[in-house]
Amino acid sequence: MRRLRLRQPRILVGMRYLDYAATTPLLPEVTDAMLASMRENFGNPASVHGVGRRARAAVEDARERLAAAIGAGPAEITFTGGGSEADNLALKGSAGAGAGGLGGHVVITVFEHHAVLDSAHWLKAHGCEVTAVSVCADGVVRPGDVAAAVRPDTSVVSVMAVNNEIGTVQPIAGIVAAVKAVNPGTLVHTDAVQALGNIPVDVGLWGVDLAAFAAHKLGGPKGVGALYVRPGLHLEALIHGGGQERGLRSGTLNVAGITGFGVAAEIAAKEVYAKAARLLPLRARLLDGLRAQVPDLIVNGDLTRRVPGNLNLSVPGAGGETLLMLLDAAGIACSTGSACQSGAIDPSHVLLAIGAPKEVADASLRFSLGRDSSIDDVDAVLAVFPGIVERSRRAA
Amino acid sequence: MRRLRLRQPRILVGMRYLDYAATTPLLPEVTDAMLASMRENFGNPASVHGVGRRARAAVEDARERLAAAIGAGPAEITFTGGGSEADNLALKGSAGAGAGGLGGHVVITVFEHHAVLDSAHWLKAHGCEVTAVSVCADGVVRPGDVAAAVRPDTSVVSVMAVNNEIGTVQPIAGIVAAVKAVNPGTLVHTDAVQALGNIPVDVGLWGVDLAAFAAHKLGGPKGVGALYVRPGLHLEALIHGGGQERGLRSGTLNVAGITGFGVAAEIAAKEVYAKAARLLPLRARLLDGLRAQVPDLIVNGDLTRRVPGNLNLSVPGAGGETLLMLLDAAGIACSTGSACQSGAIDPSHVLLAIGAPKEVADASLRFSLGRDSSIDDVDAVLAVFPGIVERSRRAA
Repeated sequence: MRRLRLRQPRILVGMRYLDYAATTPLLPEVTDAMLASMRENFGNPASVHGVGRRARAAVEDARERLAAAIGAGPAEITFTGGGSEADNLALKGSAGAGAGGLGGHVVITVFEHHAVLDSAHWLKAHGCEVTAVSVCADGVVRPGDVAAAVRPDTSVVSVMAVNNEIGTVQPIAGIVAAVKAVNPGTLVHTDAVQALGNIPVDVGLWGVDLAAFAAHKLGGPKGVGALYVRPGLHLEALIHGGGQERGLRSGTLNVAGITGFGVAAEIAAKEVYAKAARLLPLRARLLDGLRAQVPDLIVNGDLTRRVPGNLNLSVPGAGGETLLMLLDAAGIACSTGSACQSGAIDPSHVLLAIGAPKEVADASLRFSLGRDSSIDDVDAVLAVFPGIVERSRRAA
Repeated sequence: MRRLRLRQPRILVGMRYLDYAATTPLLPEVTDAMLASMRENFGNPASVHGVGRRARAAVEDARERLAAAIGAGPAEITFTGGGSEADNLALKGSAGAGAGGLGGHVVITVFEHHAVLDSAHWLKAHGCEVTAVSVCADGVVRPGDVAAAVRPDTSVVSVMAVNNEIGTVQPIAGIVAAVKAVNPGTLVHTDAVQALGNIPVDVGLWGVDLAAFAAHKLGGPKGVGALYVRPGLHLEALIHGGGQERGLRSGTLNVAGITGFGVAAEIAAKEVYAKAARLLPLRARLLDGLRAQVPDLIVNGDLTRRVPGNLNLSVPGAGGETLLMLLDAAGIACSTGSACQSGAIDPSHVLLAIGAPKEVADASLRFSLGRDSSIDDVDAVLAVFPGIVERSRRAA
């Protein structure tokens, strides 16, 4: 794998970055493509003239790259302002697309990202019934449990492809089959924000109707996402206006960001196996080292049924927030849970969902490795971890 | 004013760009700031660690720059995925923020951007009553006409600060005063997307409760916008999730884009008078030249009560789309109306709103000058215009 250039972020800020699930550095190829777009392709893709057509061509090129990376056709991609917007559009747009507006029934799981949880909460406040399916202790949702929640009036089911905190991979194809067997008219959405670049993604093999993606989780820019929408599906838009993206997402398209997303998605799909092959032994080295130092360490969720870069663990008797701060002070960037909810004092809803006692959830840390993670990163953690655990346990 | 660098867009695509109201090239200062951010500041602003704090600091720095540029405090800025999203959030968020959800009454004007028009249309479909106030033939809305539409149950009034097609400037301060005199509880929103960088903007002097901005109209990046929200105002969010932007707009913040927006806003505010002083004689040269060539030319809307770079005119007996295509073929980029609606066959709703007959609306062209417009650009139009008008009139 290519190494970081000297000008790259980690060196400049003096940190070891083990928080790739929160966000990723831009791939150099993405930076280059975006810079060229920013300098040479400033037109509004909706403009009729040559400057606009050139911008539109760049958007369509990126659409093709992203589509190919997820096993879709270009016409099935709707670009959005991020993964959260894509999740909101999927849930609110499909639950409200019926002739009667909002109503009926929606199924999610208890350990979804807040973009899905809070969209479901909003739907509930606007007249929908919501069922939240439980997840097993291994961090995997069972298709039968999802299917059992589906009713004749269930408009949409939403199950994430990869959990953002514990990295567990969900049996999306099995869930789709089980749901459709009960109600062929029920749509299935998957929040695939943590999947693309970490596991092979093929929306056709999954059989989903909707899938959400975010560029910044795979070496692309922040502020760009996409929703896969199965052909023929009608959604209600969340943002109305100029009618861009076939009326599904109005607003001038972010040409440079979309260009970067296309490049990032292509590379992510191409490198997914090589990256996994490189990260699995790195993660094993990290876990083995930590276990040797802290024998009572708990791995949260099934270790093998998860993306190769994720390691979510709890240190009994220590505080996750304290560990995080001490690691930060030692120049190591990681997380207690999802970055989006960092700073929240509540214990992780994901860890509680897989049956972790509150004190285990409170003692959690998420390390997430990525494209440029190295043995040096892992060994830097191992060099400081015992002392940090000891200080945290004393403080607790 | 600084001239374009050789590597800049116009030279590369071989076009004379007179469509700044559709979108603008990135300012070189913006490109530089964004590139530095993309390379050196990749963290998730929601992360607790140093990499995240550094990204958060960049966002807060940009928030301060934008706030200063519009006469607001930093806490009053909510970053969004664009101007259309900001308009949608303003209208849907304020109309739906009451305890009873959607309902009541909303006032807009007939010549708003589609981001406002179509948000109002959505509100109507979800139980709100909507009144669309007319605009006078000069392209200016009268405060008394707006106030006359306000009722005890009017939740929000939305009037654009500058019209996107004809560039006319609206008396926002007078409209706010008139509205509040009738109903102090009614919120006033302004779509200020075409205002910032073209006229002095001060949300405090306007007295508005809400104002929408888009970075790409002022030399900033596409895909970034902002909503000014008066302190103490509660809106309902459009995008739910991680709770970013004080819960008003969830989703990982677009650090590089927001950084670019901050730089662009600062420069736009600083240069607004110098730019106007430079563009007014350029526009006069263009109009005088065109009038000498086509004596029956019609200027749509009041010429003086508009932003300095805008010239919207109609060529009787010619087709606007044909003119646009022929100008494009001659290497000149302009528009028939708003870029967002380009390609639409319907005559401009703005021109119809100011009383233009359909054949005048169908014969319209919008030239919009900007920061790097030059005498050469103007003279390039004048060199080809008579021949193009003749061809268009023959074709019609």
